[in-house]
Amino acid sequence: MTRDARRLTRVVRVGDLSIGGGSPIVVQSMTNTDTRDVGATVAQIRALQRGGCELVRVAVPDMAAAQAIAAIKREVTLPIVADIHYDPRLALAALAAGADKLRLNPGNIRAPERIREVAQAAAERGVPIRVGVNAGSLDERFLKGGKVTPEGMAEAALWEVSLLEKAGFRDIVISLKAHDVALTVEANRLVAKEGDWPLHLGVTEPGTGLEGIVKSAVGIGILLSQGIGDTIRVSLPGDPVREVEVAWEILKALGLRQRGPSFVVCPTCGRTGIDIPGIAEEIRKELSQLEKPLTIAVMGCPVNGLGEAQRADYAILGGSGYGTIYAHGQVVKPKVPEEKLAEELVSLILREVKSGEA
Amino acid sequence: MTRDARRLTRVVRVGDLSIGGGSPIVVQSMTNTDTRDVGATVAQIRALQRGGCELVRVAVPDMAAAQAIAAIKREVTLPIVADIHYDPRLALAALAAGADKLRLNPGNIRAPERIREVAQAAAERGVPIRVGVNAGSLDERFLKGGKVTPEGMAEAALWEVSLLEKAGFRDIVISLKAHDVALTVEANRLVAKEGDWPLHLGVTEPGTGLEGIVKSAVGIGILLSQGIGDTIRVSLPGDPVREVEVAWEILKALGLRQRGPSFVVCPTCGRTGIDIPGIAEEIRKELSQLEKPLTIAVMGCPVNGLGEAQRADYAILGGSGYGTIYAHGQVVKPKVPEEKLAEELVSLILREVKSGEA
Repeated sequence: MTRDARRLTRVVRVGDLSIGGGSPIVVQSMTNTDTRDVGATVAQIRALQRGGCELVRVAVPDMAAAQAIAAIKREVTLPIVADIHYDPRLALAALAAGADKLRLNPGNIRAPERIREVAQAAAERGVPIRVGVNAGSLDERFLKGGKVTPEGMAEAALWEVSLLEKAGFRDIVISLKAHDVALTVEANRLVAKEGDWPLHLGVTEPGTGLEGIVKSAVGIGILLSQGIGDTIRVSLPGDPVREVEVAWEILKALGLRQRGPSFVVCPTCGRTGIDIPGIAEEIRKELSQLEKPLTIAVMGCPVNGLGEAQRADYAILGGSGYGTIYAHGQVVKPKVPEEKLAEELVSLILREVKSGEA
Repeated sequence: MTRDARRLTRVVRVGDLSIGGGSPIVVQSMTNTDTRDVGATVAQIRALQRGGCELVRVAVPDMAAAQAIAAIKREVTLPIVADIHYDPRLALAALAAGADKLRLNPGNIRAPERIREVAQAAAERGVPIRVGVNAGSLDERFLKGGKVTPEGMAEAALWEVSLLEKAGFRDIVISLKAHDVALTVEANRLVAKEGDWPLHLGVTEPGTGLEGIVKSAVGIGILLSQGIGDTIRVSLPGDPVREVEVAWEILKALGLRQRGPSFVVCPTCGRTGIDIPGIAEEIRKELSQLEKPLTIAVMGCPVNGLGEAQRADYAILGGSGYGTIYAHGQVVKPKVPEEKLAEELVSLILREVKSGEA
């Protein structure tokens, strides 16, 4: 098996959503609006939901932000996680405002009696807590020779978890994030062995553009391939909808979940006689709202193209200036001119999705 | 360990380059120009080399393409791999033209006597052969109940390898590629157990844009984390320089090789008071020609920012409309206005790289 058997965890419920215990891996993200700006935050949450986000976190830097959660909750259906640092009173205010989950950072909320107080308030409302350790804010008690290590990160998480569990609180999710992929992977592996808490995966602050996408895919991908991970958040600067897109691609790549079209596109070489990337991109854009899982092959020549075209749900097999359209392994339209290929395939797919033949 | 110990392989030499046997993992790509267009192919090979490509493959669909390798070789220093399908005479012509390596596809070159003839000609010139199996062109002898399986792909590779080895030829690299990540990973794991051939990793035809990048990062990343893989090619439609960028990001993410700046960039949230992605992207662009490995943190607030800024080689820690510049863990310029941050940091870095302080 490419993937190890999925690690068995307790189930933690967030609103109507289940995390762990074999539930589908939950895709989450975080808004980057000012949480106090309810209109902007609601708009971003709705965009995230359209993109496939299932759980959304908002920053709670002050009391006004905590209280804004009540107004946000009235406008959206996604469950809301309140991100709490430094001040446990913000956690109590977020709970009062209807937050569906709390994230506490053991690096900056350290007083045991305050943590117990938050746990009690969360328990009364049936709200779970994520213990979220970040390498960048690891409490110095857990540094090893001044350095952040996987062991230190794991100890920081387990210290806070033991406080919560001693208070009788068990609805706990753990995350351990670093920008270093190896550190992230190893810290998660250590905690995975110590108990049955669901794990929230992410590589934090992973860099801009390509670097951030690749580090997230590699780090989260390795852990998921080892059966570790129950919810994922890809962290990227900029529009968080991109985070959700990357998260879905990671889950799809591993065959863990399906959503919308998956493409098989030849990398193009000296044998290619039509604009493969242009045609594939046009099809992808036209079908971006489609949630039904489908495979679409766009291939430039028969070397690998014939086999891929026959195996895909839909395909284009290119010749020189034209291409052949396949559906369900059969030729449906030979020798379609290059400039008509994307349009013809898209209308065929939409027609078949509508009629139920797809 | 996050990464398993690297699998030990024989060493295969391609020109001045070593693949396997503990050598650095080689980054390769493939041109998508018409190989017969020597000017365009040479220009693309030079662009690939500037991007960090170390070995480049060209399509050889006909005799004119095979012969063009001689003219291309006169203009470039990167070793050239001739990609051969269907016709073994093209392999002989590519060898005569000075190709540094051959890629043969056992799915479409099947006659044992022809394969032995190619091996003999390659051996005379000290040129290695990659046995490159693709799921899309798997010989039907190796289908299992009409289906492509990891076992069938592995058998196809081992069949051709045994022909070559019986002829006394040992400079063999193997690749097993599919667009399906699980199939790719499993086929490679099977072959890795069967012998000491270096493995060339790639997920083929992985899709457009984001999907292709993520599938490549997940598939190649999982195998590398298991100690498997000696050279990698990311396959993407469009400009192949992008393939090389993604390949380097995968190797950097796993700490296997270093090249140029690595960024730690906070994902931005409701606490952020400066344009983090814009500033990070500006710095990345300005330093894109820098090959020296450096870590640069661009962080929006002190939650994780303080720790990351102190640990990076260079950093910006944002406040509201301004930021503080760090170098080597120390504050070097507090309260720099937002619009000057990228420029000031870039000139500091370039100054220190030049003086040797970086």
